[in-house]
Amino acid sequence: MEALVLERKGELSIREINLPTEVGPHDVKIKIQTVGICGSDVHYYEYGAIGPFVVKEPMVLGHEASGTVVEVGHAVKHHKPGDRVCMEPGIPDPNSRASRLGIYNLDPAVRFWATPPIHGCLTPYVIHPAAYTFKLPDNVSFAEGAMVEPLAVGMHAAVKAKIKPGDLAVVMGAGPIGIVTSLAAIAGGCSQVVITDVQQPKLDLAATLGPIRPVNVAKENLRGVIDELTDGWGADLVFEASGAPAAIQAAPEALCPGGRIVLVGLPIRPVSLDIVALSAKEASIETVFRYAHVYPRALALMGSGKIDLKPLISRTFDFRDSIEAFEFAVKMPPDCIKAQIQVISA
Amino acid sequence: MEALVLERKGELSIREINLPTEVGPHDVKIKIQTVGICGSDVHYYEYGAIGPFVVKEPMVLGHEASGTVVEVGHAVKHHKPGDRVCMEPGIPDPNSRASRLGIYNLDPAVRFWATPPIHGCLTPYVIHPAAYTFKLPDNVSFAEGAMVEPLAVGMHAAVKAKIKPGDLAVVMGAGPIGIVTSLAAIAGGCSQVVITDVQQPKLDLAATLGPIRPVNVAKENLRGVIDELTDGWGADLVFEASGAPAAIQAAPEALCPGGRIVLVGLPIRPVSLDIVALSAKEASIETVFRYAHVYPRALALMGSGKIDLKPLISRTFDFRDSIEAFEFAVKMPPDCIKAQIQVISA
Amino acid sequence: MEALVLERKGELSIREINLPTEVGPHDVKIKIQTVGICGSDVHYYEYGAIGPFVVKEPMVLGHEASGTVVEVGHAVKHHKPGDRVCMEPGIPDPNSRASRLGIYNLDPAVRFWATPPIHGCLTPYVIHPAAYTFKLPDNVSFAEGAMVEPLAVGMHAAVKAKIKPGDLAVVMGAGPIGIVTSLAAIAGGCSQVVITDVQQPKLDLAATLGPIRPVNVAKENLRGVIDELTDGWGADLVFEASGAPAAIQAAPEALCPGGRIVLVGLPIRPVSLDIVALSAKEASIETVFRYAHVYPRALALMGSGKIDLKPLISRTFDFRDSIEAFEFAVKMPPDCIKAQIQVISA
Amino acid sequence: MEALVLERKGELSIREINLPTEVGPHDVKIKIQTVGICGSDVHYYEYGAIGPFVVKEPMVLGHEASGTVVEVGHAVKHHKPGDRVCMEPGIPDPNSRASRLGIYNLDPAVRFWATPPIHGCLTPYVIHPAAYTFKLPDNVSFAEGAMVEPLAVGMHAAVKAKIKPGDLAVVMGAGPIGIVTSLAAIAGGCSQVVITDVQQPKLDLAATLGPIRPVNVAKENLRGVIDELTDGWGADLVFEASGAPAAIQAAPEALCPGGRIVLVGLPIRPVSLDIVALSAKEASIETVFRYAHVYPRALALMGSGKIDLKPLISRTFDFRDSIEAFEFAVKMPPDCIKAQIQVISA
Repeated sequence: MEALVLERKGELSIREINLPTEVGPHDVKIKIQTVGICGSDVHYYEYGAIGPFVVKEPMVLGHEASGTVVEVGHAVKHHKPGDRVCMEPGIPDPNSRASRLGIYNLDPAVRFWATPPIHGCLTPYVIHPAAYTFKLPDNVSFAEGAMVEPLAVGMHAAVKAKIKPGDLAVVMGAGPIGIVTSLAAIAGGCSQVVITDVQQPKLDLAATLGPIRPVNVAKENLRGVIDELTDGWGADLVFEASGAPAAIQAAPEALCPGGRIVLVGLPIRPVSLDIVALSAKEASIETVFRYAHVYPRALALMGSGKIDLKPLISRTFDFRDSIEAFEFAVKMPPDCIKAQIQVISA
Repeated sequence: MEALVLERKGELSIREINLPTEVGPHDVKIKIQTVGICGSDVHYYEYGAIGPFVVKEPMVLGHEASGTVVEVGHAVKHHKPGDRVCMEPGIPDPNSRASRLGIYNLDPAVRFWATPPIHGCLTPYVIHPAAYTFKLPDNVSFAEGAMVEPLAVGMHAAVKAKIKPGDLAVVMGAGPIGIVTSLAAIAGGCSQVVITDVQQPKLDLAATLGPIRPVNVAKENLRGVIDELTDGWGADLVFEASGAPAAIQAAPEALCPGGRIVLVGLPIRPVSLDIVALSAKEASIETVFRYAHVYPRALALMGSGKIDLKPLISRTFDFRDSIEAFEFAVKMPPDCIKAQIQVISA
Repeated sequence: MEALVLERKGELSIREINLPTEVGPHDVKIKIQTVGICGSDVHYYEYGAIGPFVVKEPMVLGHEASGTVVEVGHAVKHHKPGDRVCMEPGIPDPNSRASRLGIYNLDPAVRFWATPPIHGCLTPYVIHPAAYTFKLPDNVSFAEGAMVEPLAVGMHAAVKAKIKPGDLAVVMGAGPIGIVTSLAAIAGGCSQVVITDVQQPKLDLAATLGPIRPVNVAKENLRGVIDELTDGWGADLVFEASGAPAAIQAAPEALCPGGRIVLVGLPIRPVSLDIVALSAKEASIETVFRYAHVYPRALALMGSGKIDLKPLISRTFDFRDSIEAFEFAVKMPPDCIKAQIQVISA
Repeated sequence: MEALVLERKGELSIREINLPTEVGPHDVKIKIQTVGICGSDVHYYEYGAIGPFVVKEPMVLGHEASGTVVEVGHAVKHHKPGDRVCMEPGIPDPNSRASRLGIYNLDPAVRFWATPPIHGCLTPYVIHPAAYTFKLPDNVSFAEGAMVEPLAVGMHAAVKAKIKPGDLAVVMGAGPIGIVTSLAAIAGGCSQVVITDVQQPKLDLAATLGPIRPVNVAKENLRGVIDELTDGWGADLVFEASGAPAAIQAAPEALCPGGRIVLVGLPIRPVSLDIVALSAKEASIETVFRYAHVYPRALALMGSGKIDLKPLISRTFDFRDSIEAFEFAVKMPPDCIKAQIQVISA
């Protein structure tokens, strides 16, 4: 089958590659429609590795996908050919202890698309477990369907935050993850989000997407804004979505007594934290790893119109222009969020 | 001071009555602007009692109020004259065990406006603790401010429901409480609400207020609708807001495995519940009593535009027409939700 | 293989029967050592059915078992021949939605030992999934290991109760389930349990098992006892383990404001509940269905000495006396809790 | 009244000092029986300050106290003269936002005994709010009653940990706080505690107090021990009670997927944390500040015999030997946990 293959660091090609074709009893076969380009795809392209995951063999890229079911395994009950779907890219071992506990994202045996040595989905057809394939609501396009994967990161953070209706959240970082976390937080019950960044174009874009108050922390004092909004009490929640040590360190000050911090952004190195300051507010901290059980939540919120991802899709490329798409993604302008590839299947 | 006084069952008068005038150190004095008429006000008017609470002396009615601060006690820090505010009508003993635990609504010593023998707020000025007085956001009118009290009932139910982002909720009953519960559930994180009733005009109104799917249970099968919306899984949450035994009994069937029921409506008599059916789904049930800590949540959601209460205000009367207002409320048409009185102060 | 077979209602025989012998890749083969007799085994023997589950074909009884691993499938990592183990009798479909969510006990496809048409474990050898087979700590005997299954019911209730350290719990009913729930509640963080019943011998036995205060509700006022123990506040938790309507109806009165009721006992018919009384305390109610994820918890508490099940084992029979054992269990004296059968394997 | 007065850094005297004598309507007057010496008392004695709290005027020391009620204010209902009691040393403003929310320990206006400029309780009589005065169970001595305050720190950590019955906890640090946290964790539902330290006498003492497995991390590998106890899964909970940066940094490795860390020990300086390692397990972190609502929990567990504090009381001094007691506490041997002073009142 044809696919976008990362041959090695810095080298992409569109070419035939051997991929699984057998549809198991619990699997579906999907004709791929749209695939978004994720920061991790770009990182593998540029650096050939992310932490311990090193590209040693040619690997198909892509893990943000939507498509149409064309065939179902004999044990599949909830899907049929013709279903418009999106797919969760990580497949756990259902018999692992983590999976049994419902935290399948923490199963060390998870096989995740486009994480070496597992092939991704930038190819016309994929075989996937039905259990990790989700129907798109009628009002959700394929392009939006391929956005569910990045949204899932924010949704999972929103679920872990245990939002109470009306909470005020700070989201640190107005990049793609900060944006989807903001949308998930608002749809998930927050009254509004105060989003921070130092790049004004990102903040300007964010401000158009809902009750989102942008704060350029290079120019404005975050705690001052929060004091004004909360009568001096502090933010109920802080989502740290930048991974920047300075942002992580600023989280406790923004928080109210008894507040919660969710660390979404991953700093490469350890970060120095003031535990006395955290303790004085009895802050709690949640960390997240990918996501679990949130695709149906994301799709429900998109289906009912509470989350609209269309403004986040900045540019769309044809499959044959995939390499150009990656070049665009490498140098993504600050007011762009997502580039997508339309896979035209035979 | 002039006030709307319930002299006894069935007899209202607008007349002078002796009310407190001293502003304590932690109190504020408020010029009343708008007061909504609650079902309980109407019930005291028609029947002279609600359960164990019996009107034995003339009592000022009204507990859904907004106004303007005109004076503050010397220990008050968070309010100043001119503040536009709404007021929580129940005042607990801050030294009770329940209050210390943060569940002040369960303090048996709560003094609640217009619950005998405590006077209500249908009068030009009231003295109130600053701690239970809340600033209105600039974009929230006095009329909307007087709606925070009924909304608070729904908000409290939404908080107790521990909504996860994207949950599907059923709200049983499309009366005022069902409506505010629906709005709170959607703003609080639900993807959509399926609202049930047997009165079509109420359902038609509800359907205009957000992602709310009306189901007339006299004509349509609720579980069928839920199956379609959830691929046979069931509703994550059921808010029972009718108090009707048949609705309460229908709650387990609508629910998904592990789902939660919140009982908001209060049936007068005990209701027969199928515990085997509840257990087969490991359903949990939450009950609610008034509300606690939700005024700031309601106001934050109104301030950010996530909850709009204007469509619920059906009719407004002048203070001098208060008795007419009560007559209207007694025979409230099915497509009306709330009547309010504008209190014109000297 | 030889087994204790329920031929039909009222007729047991020890005879050869065809049972699975193939050890799948994720399975272990276990030589059965001890099997406890459960009330449900006795019920099938006496009545041939429990609710919708009807014995239509001869069925091997027994689901409370311990034994020794004698063979492991090739994919099994956490067990080896010689391991002393006990087994969870319900096997869910790992690909079901409920299983993925971690609530595998609610999977409608669960296959449960000695629940028609699934054979039980009163036979010398069984094949079982390794994931539902658990190592016994060194200090836990086979007899105690066969008690983990009934304990699991109480442990699951204790987990669902979200006990806070030092909570006071009422357990209604001093039968086997009331007893194991009491032990689980105390080991799980309660300071003490007030146990109720009308049979004095059961209460007397319970009182010897830990900080358990017996209350014979035929003679003593439960709320009075609780008031004395809690200075009038009420019990934090009520575990209803009798299934008796009168006990269920008495639960709200025993409770403190904001308290929680866990319904463990299953009444055959719907029970009339006073929702106004529940709401006045904002009581929450949890229901339970079997158990999930509690075997490791039970075994850890038995291994560390916090739970001792030896006093609950009233009488032990040889496998060849199994029918006599069932006759004993049918007429269990009130001061006996559990009869067990020692399975002597070839 | 006579009292143990810290005149300034390094100088103690027993002398007359002016203390409040008026019993307010909600207050009780208590004849002090026993007062424990806390590390913070010693620290003020040695250094004259703890962080921002500086001793500028002579201050009475002591905040771990028990005694007998001798007089009650006219509004006090739950106490009477003769009651044996212990007292919570921090008194919040009941009207603050934190207090209303039930998190009174986070009220910045808390007045805390022996925290400058508030006098402590090493004096024959104190006036205290009845709401923060708690009856001792009959089987709890005054000496044990004066231990409730340090136990409360561990109890609060145990409550915040949301222990599930049977959890395995690691407690890092076998000093007084590590010990009381271990006792609270076990009584609060853990199956056992693995306690770590580098001082063998402390570990040896800890091992005698319950199902506590000592690990001298200078000699033994913590993760190895946990792997053996949990079949390679990891600890459900880690309580960090040492404040040592190396211990805090070792917490994530000890944890299971989805586990929780409670930071009890306070490191003076910021600590570098590996957020990637935390995230890979989706670890959550709770911080604590003193305690709230745990005195009744501690007393219930002591009253029922689940927590025995007698072995922690290493040495008792007469009031007239208070200065000697402090000298002893300054050089506390590693196998001693608590020194107490018996206050002989006139």
